[in-house]
Amino acid sequence: MKILVVNAGSSSLKYQLLDMKDESVIAKGNCDRIGIDGHVSAKTGDGRHIEEDCNFPTHTEAFEKLVEVLTSGETKVIDSMSEISAVGHRIVQGAEIFKETCLVTDEVIDQIDSLAELAPVHNHPHALALRACKAVIPAGTPQVVVFDTAFHSTMPRKAYLYGLPYECYTDLHVRKYGFHGTSHRFVSGELARVMGKPIEELKIVSCHLGNGSSITAINGGKSVDTSMGFTPLDGLVMGTRCGSVDPSAVDYVEKKMGFTPDQMTEYMNKKSGFLGLSGIGSDNRDIQAAASEGNERALIVSEIFAYQIKKFIGSYAAAMNGLDAVIFTGGIGENAPEVRAAACSNLDILGIHIDAEKNLCRGILKEISTDDSKTKVYVIPTNEELLIARDTLALVTK
Amino acid sequence: MKILVVNAGSSSLKYQLLDMKDESVIAKGNCDRIGIDGHVSAKTGDGRHIEEDCNFPTHTEAFEKLVEVLTSGETKVIDSMSEISAVGHRIVQGAEIFKETCLVTDEVIDQIDSLAELAPVHNHPHALALRACKAVIPAGTPQVVVFDTAFHSTMPRKAYLYGLPYECYTDLHVRKYGFHGTSHRFVSGELARVMGKPIEELKIVSCHLGNGSSITAINGGKSVDTSMGFTPLDGLVMGTRCGSVDPSAVDYVEKKMGFTPDQMTEYMNKKSGFLGLSGIGSDNRDIQAAASEGNERALIVSEIFAYQIKKFIGSYAAAMNGLDAVIFTGGIGENAPEVRAAACSNLDILGIHIDAEKNLCRGILKEISTDDSKTKVYVIPTNEELLIARDTLALVTK
Repeated sequence: MKILVVNAGSSSLKYQLLDMKDESVIAKGNCDRIGIDGHVSAKTGDGRHIEEDCNFPTHTEAFEKLVEVLTSGETKVIDSMSEISAVGHRIVQGAEIFKETCLVTDEVIDQIDSLAELAPVHNHPHALALRACKAVIPAGTPQVVVFDTAFHSTMPRKAYLYGLPYECYTDLHVRKYGFHGTSHRFVSGELARVMGKPIEELKIVSCHLGNGSSITAINGGKSVDTSMGFTPLDGLVMGTRCGSVDPSAVDYVEKKMGFTPDQMTEYMNKKSGFLGLSGIGSDNRDIQAAASEGNERALIVSEIFAYQIKKFIGSYAAAMNGLDAVIFTGGIGENAPEVRAAACSNLDILGIHIDAEKNLCRGILKEISTDDSKTKVYVIPTNEELLIARDTLALVTK
Repeated sequence: MKILVVNAGSSSLKYQLLDMKDESVIAKGNCDRIGIDGHVSAKTGDGRHIEEDCNFPTHTEAFEKLVEVLTSGETKVIDSMSEISAVGHRIVQGAEIFKETCLVTDEVIDQIDSLAELAPVHNHPHALALRACKAVIPAGTPQVVVFDTAFHSTMPRKAYLYGLPYECYTDLHVRKYGFHGTSHRFVSGELARVMGKPIEELKIVSCHLGNGSSITAINGGKSVDTSMGFTPLDGLVMGTRCGSVDPSAVDYVEKKMGFTPDQMTEYMNKKSGFLGLSGIGSDNRDIQAAASEGNERALIVSEIFAYQIKKFIGSYAAAMNGLDAVIFTGGIGENAPEVRAAACSNLDILGIHIDAEKNLCRGILKEISTDDSKTKVYVIPTNEELLIARDTLALVTK
């Protein structure tokens, strides 16, 4: 069975084609710059690849190109789309409507689109991609949607409610949703597998650190709390996002800077975080390099980031009254030993001890705690596409 | 030596007169409803008291009345204001200008007034009271200002900086300041005294829970982190304040509700928290009573409040890599056993075990942890006026 996984953004259509026999990647690529001009990059599992400028006025043309590169030319891997058993889509915001992976119907697409107000950057493009996909794949090929928020639907109300008036929750749907759910679910499953323990018995803090970062408390395999909130802006300081800020400061800065609300949203999402604090850039590698040369503002960023991670670990260990393991994943989590070392330093109180040597690893699954560390620490590469493919397969073969 | 302590609000002038020989309260009261009409309530340490409607167009008339009730009539305790050695004022916001208690000069008053933008509700009335006081007390009587923020001036930058662009800090002075500093300082000093240990050796989490609530990490006697932020809105859910909220939600709710920024500020400060979540009221006693009768939204409030306290304790224990004691103080902290019990339940991971029997105490200094609790838990009544009086005395006799 072959499963196509799609991750659509406002101007891009990333895809992976997986052979579920051995979960290998047959092909992957990106139809990019939709609505601007158009560019496709496509690779096959056996090493063929193309890069090509195109014309993608909408997601439909991009999807047609995706079909073309899979079924013809240099990067052909299948004869026709009828060889694909199902298409799985990553969807950012499922709100309280979608608490689990489900089959796509026209009504589902409309509902996803209707959540655009809660996820303006993501959900409408997802709906566009779902409609475009439906138009180009054979009738009868099932589509499945997997939600970033679904894993967090198990959070108790004490974790997801804000202290705003209750009508903000009931009428405006303002609550903590959490994101990166597919990643946190994948790596916590992997952890249980490599630890050889039932996930039901584990208390885990999963740190997904990348351009966007979130930390999740996972008790018995269920998300019980997470650092992102109503939107992916909340929680940790990120590449260009500010993370948690005194709510009073929002209108204060807006007024002082002469911003409109939309400009303030942009400022907090695109100009803040590592970029805005350091003045250097949003990429952790640049920050760490500058910090190691003594750049003061880069040092500030790395101090704050590690400190905030440390506090979330402590906070969630208290929330679960226990901590068996900490996971680091995501671009930074998998590849930045110095961030892991700083976040886990001086955490004897939680039984956390990192082995400096083991911690030098990058991008591989590895236990990095010392043998006598009561709480285990792991680096676990995430693979959201694989989990989406697995979910999709499970649903269409049920 | 007699010290007068003043706590001025926009429409009130609370005072205490202390005899520093034995730190006893000679008189206390409140000149209230300034700018509206006027009302004075005054008590003496030996049990005399008056209540009287007055006319207080400004803080000056209120201060004149304060002098009158101290020096004449039913509540007379001194012959003239010249018996008072000094006046100590509580000031909410000292920002980065005032890192410690200091003597009042005209320049100091102007500086306090100039910080009004950072603390619109408090600092301007403080300045009015300082000027009114100067006008009515004998020339040469020193005035001293004690800042709520000063105790937190020892926080490291990793704790006080937000993830907003650095210019928000350097140009707009947006950072975490923290409040309730005088209370946290007082109770942590008391703790060291009753534990018989040097405060330099203690790692403490101090929970000041009242209408406003804040939790502070105190390492070696110094504040290293605190839950309130740029303003007293941030952190825990409070009587009418929302506490931490995804910054994206601020403009979202503002827009959806059709609020102006000022209306949104009012909504988050006066209509949220216990009041807005429960629909019952802002007083924890009403919430707990309703919760004990099974009122669902009261239960939500008590769950959220206890859970947030628990997470801050865990977070700060991790930040300090240790925890010797937790303090509960403030109106709720001193008087709500059910809040303390819920916040400290299931915290074996931090060595916290409450003794259910001991925990029934209200309003008295008491250790409430079990004998074998690794981390000690204390109820410690706060006394900000006494600390302000001590600070004032220390400064004027230096």
